[in-house]
Amino acid sequence: MFITFEGGEGSGKSTQIRRLAERLRKAGRDIVMTREPGGTPEAEAVRTLLVSGDVARWTANSEALLNYAAREQHVVQVVRPALAAARTVLCDRFMDSTRAYQGYAGGCDLGLIDALERAIVGPTRPDLTLVFDLDPAIGLSRARSRGDAVSEDRYERKGLAFHRKLREGFLDILRRDPKRCRLVDASLSVEEVERSVWDIVSGML
Amino acid sequence: MFITFEGGEGSGKSTQIRRLAERLRKAGRDIVMTREPGGTPEAEAVRTLLVSGDVARWTANSEALLNYAAREQHVVQVVRPALAAARTVLCDRFMDSTRAYQGYAGGCDLGLIDALERAIVGPTRPDLTLVFDLDPAIGLSRARSRGDAVSEDRYERKGLAFHRKLREGFLDILRRDPKRCRLVDASLSVEEVERSVWDIVSGML
Repeated sequence: MFITFEGGEGSGKSTQIRRLAERLRKAGRDIVMTREPGGTPEAEAVRTLLVSGDVARWTANSEALLNYAAREQHVVQVVRPALAAARTVLCDRFMDSTRAYQGYAGGCDLGLIDALERAIVGPTRPDLTLVFDLDPAIGLSRARSRGDAVSEDRYERKGLAFHRKLREGFLDILRRDPKRCRLVDASLSVEEVERSVWDIVSGML
Repeated sequence: MFITFEGGEGSGKSTQIRRLAERLRKAGRDIVMTREPGGTPEAEAVRTLLVSGDVARWTANSEALLNYAAREQHVVQVVRPALAAARTVLCDRFMDSTRAYQGYAGGCDLGLIDALERAIVGPTRPDLTLVFDLDPAIGLSRARSRGDAVSEDRYERKGLAFHRKLREGFLDILRRDPKRCRLVDASLSVEEVERSVWDIVSGML
């Protein structure tokens, strides 16, 4: 099973992916916890390019292409071998982040993103995508208060208008693929979110 | 005017681009001489990723995406502004190298390469592409004897079968777009090649 965690800044994905991994391990599942962009040495090198230097150094098209180069390496070397070995893969961000950040919010051509998704993700679409939804004003203030990693910080500086488009993007992805995507109300407490994630995932198992 | 130089290893592109630049400058043209992947700090950083480490570290898809990320930066920041300022751009490798190296020879999906070409190159297709054609056995021995840069060396190690597919790829590109692409017999002497390049370019001016 392949489960991806998607959403804006400060939505609590990283905490919840760890908690879900723990619950699934207790239930006897063999878990691979990974993230994008990254998850292999080559993909992490691309991530370093994306998060270093001036926030505006890459165009949205370039960011989409770099993310997809990292994704190709990650899918080929990590995700597909893990799924083939019947392991459960939990991934912090995947294809929907490129569509939401670079496409809906960044202005990268959505036709290009469709073509990339077909060619690189191909049959390796997630079985379940949890979309962590939160008012971006709250998400950004949460992210700021916990002092997030560089990569997140870069997007925080893009301003509220960007993050509103991002949220609408994720909600549109969810509306277009309701079989795969499930909404998680990320405004609730950590424990309440953990419970609703578990309700969704255990319902699927 | 936008002129690109394409071809396999050891085909003499780099020498000829310098000689053509000199002739065009003498003819009063304002020349931008550039190369791919590269030509901007971001694109050069991507080039460094492509040419460092093990020769097999990237899949053909990843190489195509990284080349196109570098191309997007180069087209947006260098090629389009130069053409808009009525300058003549001479570029050592461009979109056809991705199609030949990663597509025809490397096995990257040609539909993906079509989509990348449409989205990233768009209307900025070269006015003229010189395809330097040479028996790969001769090209590789020339490249080896002159001790080429790291990037070229990586491809030399891919073996003759790869370079034969590469040559067929370039010839196929030429057959499919005969208005834009012109064959240059790179087996001739440097002076003869220089003359044939000048015949083609001066005929177009």
